[in-house]
Amino acid sequence: MNKTWILKKRPVGDVGEGDLDLVESPVRDLNDGEVCLRTIYLSLDPTNRIWMSDREQYMPPVQIGDPMRGGGISVVEESRFDGLKAGDIVNTGLGQWSLYQVKPGAEVNKLPELPGVPLTAFMGPIGMTGMTAYFGLMDIGKPKPGETVVVSAAAGAVGSMVGQIAKIQGCRVVGIAGSDDKCKWLTETAGFDAAINYKKEDVGAALDRHCPNGIDINFENVGGEIMDTILMRLNDFARMPLCGLISSYNATEPVPGPYNFSMLLMRHVTLKGFIVTDYSERFPEGMQAMAGWLMEGKLKFETDVVEGLENAPSSLDRLFTGKNLGKLVVQVSEPN
Amino acid sequence: MNKTWILKKRPVGDVGEGDLDLVESPVRDLNDGEVCLRTIYLSLDPTNRIWMSDREQYMPPVQIGDPMRGGGISVVEESRFDGLKAGDIVNTGLGQWSLYQVKPGAEVNKLPELPGVPLTAFMGPIGMTGMTAYFGLMDIGKPKPGETVVVSAAAGAVGSMVGQIAKIQGCRVVGIAGSDDKCKWLTETAGFDAAINYKKEDVGAALDRHCPNGIDINFENVGGEIMDTILMRLNDFARMPLCGLISSYNATEPVPGPYNFSMLLMRHVTLKGFIVTDYSERFPEGMQAMAGWLMEGKLKFETDVVEGLENAPSSLDRLFTGKNLGKLVVQVSEPN
Repeated sequence: MNKTWILKKRPVGDVGEGDLDLVESPVRDLNDGEVCLRTIYLSLDPTNRIWMSDREQYMPPVQIGDPMRGGGISVVEESRFDGLKAGDIVNTGLGQWSLYQVKPGAEVNKLPELPGVPLTAFMGPIGMTGMTAYFGLMDIGKPKPGETVVVSAAAGAVGSMVGQIAKIQGCRVVGIAGSDDKCKWLTETAGFDAAINYKKEDVGAALDRHCPNGIDINFENVGGEIMDTILMRLNDFARMPLCGLISSYNATEPVPGPYNFSMLLMRHVTLKGFIVTDYSERFPEGMQAMAGWLMEGKLKFETDVVEGLENAPSSLDRLFTGKNLGKLVVQVSEPN
Repeated sequence: MNKTWILKKRPVGDVGEGDLDLVESPVRDLNDGEVCLRTIYLSLDPTNRIWMSDREQYMPPVQIGDPMRGGGISVVEESRFDGLKAGDIVNTGLGQWSLYQVKPGAEVNKLPELPGVPLTAFMGPIGMTGMTAYFGLMDIGKPKPGETVVVSAAAGAVGSMVGQIAKIQGCRVVGIAGSDDKCKWLTETAGFDAAINYKKEDVGAALDRHCPNGIDINFENVGGEIMDTILMRLNDFARMPLCGLISSYNATEPVPGPYNFSMLLMRHVTLKGFIVTDYSERFPEGMQAMAGWLMEGKLKFETDVVEGLENAPSSLDRLFTGKNLGKLVVQVSEPN
């Protein structure tokens, strides 16, 4: 029997009990070219919350009554696709919040075996969050040695990679995060030059202290007041990869844009909104760079593992309350 | 005797009587390398209002007690600079709101003589406003044939050029302006495909009607509600040259950014704030293109001429109330 989370109604504010239903159903038989996957890890990402809503978004939202959409890592249980066999570990691609799922074999990719690299890295540095960080920073941010990079949600899966890649590029890196523990991790483990706990510190004053030469790149994950504070400190010709606006995803009313929007004009800023799949064709380049740095020990990463498919909806909120350090995943089953 | 507008205090809201003083003083003697210019035309631009304020801006504001800053066209009255002689007509460059001014000759450029082209064109299509339109659209907007371009403040000096250049590039062009007369000029004279009178029409509904394929380029001059309405209709990978935010320049309280800011993310938008001087090194390219089109009759332009230096401050408001069609200038003296 399969278990699948179905979107029952669109959450208002935080995802609550009753917004999704966990339903049981048999797994259907395979057709030629298909594989049956068993989910090992479900990747929880802010975009899951976007997909649950009917706000304007970058792909169609999940329809009411449909399985919740999500990615992760799976093992092939049964295969009628030539390129995959039972036991292969794959990237689920765009899949479902379910224990099992049937997909065309051509839509899933077998993960390479990298010595010493845990499976969870394929949702972190060498997964979608890593690609998001890599291409957003490198292609839009265009970091140059000596420049100052600020990243919000810095202890998250994307932000923590952004900062470390920026350090590799020779930048000064300041992270903004929501707890002393996270800030400590950023500076002591991930090698950030400074970290600001926005829940305790005056972010503007802290940025002034930690960015004496202004800010050349703002990798934006959050939006809201913190973004406004950063905008006032951008240098001329600053770049702003716009990756996320997580502070507004649970909003129940229209959220005003940055009050300092005009700084984008006054400082000649280039802002670019992007979705990681914009760079699909260049993933091999990004994977090679990130895997190389990872195996050289230059990328530290953490995984926040929640046990059990039944806890997926209630765990998503960890991303919005700042509870997770690093990549948030749900362990649905064991690899073997 | 010279006459000079001095900034007396920073205007609150609209520029009012008493914010500037018109003072008389003798013109000082020239040093070697200097020229004395007599202003023919003063160019009034939204940026004059920015310079009067102490908001964060792209260059230092005019200091209280200093002459008001502005550009325009002048005639050389006296020269101790080898490259210029009395009677030469020049681009004032960054100058003053005054009848006479003394400047280093190296800082002013003699205007070329173009057959059939009036002097005012050097503040319009082949002046700073034309360069703003040309580089903002071509370099940031990157128009492709068949794409849809929307421009706000479309009957202004910059907007009217943006639309006509976009037409030359083979785009569908929709302008937004504030009167039926302007809209008529845009469609009947300037060749726009459609024009929307935002004071009478539902801008969203009109955009839906006139942009059946969505919006690929938003050349932003205005900000505020109209920008928000446009943001909701951007296509994936739209471009947004951010040239001005005139709706907020007279604001007396913080102005919220666009409520639909997240559309920059969801639609993978590239937004770039720019100042025309970012492209100084490429002005010859822009001038050549614009002068060519102008002499081929492909660029229509209007000049809104106010007579008399004494009317400069009170006329600036025409830009903010939408009274001007085309380039707003003050005629300070006659060419000869």
